[in-house]
Amino acid sequence: MFKLDQAFVATSHAVGDLPLCHVRLQDDARYPWLVLIPRRYGLREIEDLPTEDRVRLLEEAVTAGAAVRTVGEALGLDVGKLNLGALGNVTAQLHMHVVGRRQGDPAWPGPVWGHSAAIPFVQDKLDRALRAARTALDL
Amino acid sequence: MFKLDQAFVATSHAVGDLPLCHVRLQDDARYPWLVLIPRRYGLREIEDLPTEDRVRLLEEAVTAGAAVRTVGEALGLDVGKLNLGALGNVTAQLHMHVVGRRQGDPAWPGPVWGHSAAIPFVQDKLDRALRAARTALDL
Repeated sequence: MFKLDQAFVATSHAVGDLPLCHVRLQDDARYPWLVLIPRRYGLREIEDLPTEDRVRLLEEAVTAGAAVRTVGEALGLDVGKLNLGALGNVTAQLHMHVVGRRQGDPAWPGPVWGHSAAIPFVQDKLDRALRAARTALDL
Repeated sequence: MFKLDQAFVATSHAVGDLPLCHVRLQDDARYPWLVLIPRRYGLREIEDLPTEDRVRLLEEAVTAGAAVRTVGEALGLDVGKLNLGALGNVTAQLHMHVVGRRQGDPAWPGPVWGHSAAIPFVQDKLDRALRAARTALDL
């Protein structure tokens, strides 16, 4: 049975569930950033997913990319480039980051992971970002 | 027509071609690390690929993950975790990194991208890594 690693709860907010993945908004007001966690038990690597779920994961990542653009517009952080990453060096449970980047953002052009401490959302921006993400994802 | 960005030539060595992707070995002796570049014209984001090529890209990334483990064994750098990343902030042409990570590697647990200058392979290690990659990928 799927069980979400509590590390995600400390760093992100639930957006909702797609057919395969639980979707979360990373709690960093500097980037429009969604995290996809396949709702399957005991996954660490993409190769652990059966082929049909790998296809679904990538399709959901593309859908999440469009949602990240929408969240960016809602926050005034227009996305120039999407960054996709599945690392899992710190939190082992399989997850995929979909991050909206723009020239001059704090970590540009390096990766956001491990760059600097997150700046959490204030409540009204959080509400706006979650609303934009749910609308874009039909959730 | 597909044209490889010359930035890849400066930082990596050609391994060969899979059905979709040109495969390169990143020239950094500290990590077993392959780069997949879909052989299609004008791609920047995964969403630019038609659905059947997205499926192929992820399958080739899984295959490359297995090859990265084999390269790691050949170099005495056993892989504990795979890192997958499609960033493109510096080199815009669509590409996917498949990096073999281990606890205590130079960038661990952060991402390898942007961490520190590469340490190029010496010739015999390069030969060993390329041979291992080609064997693992049937090239």
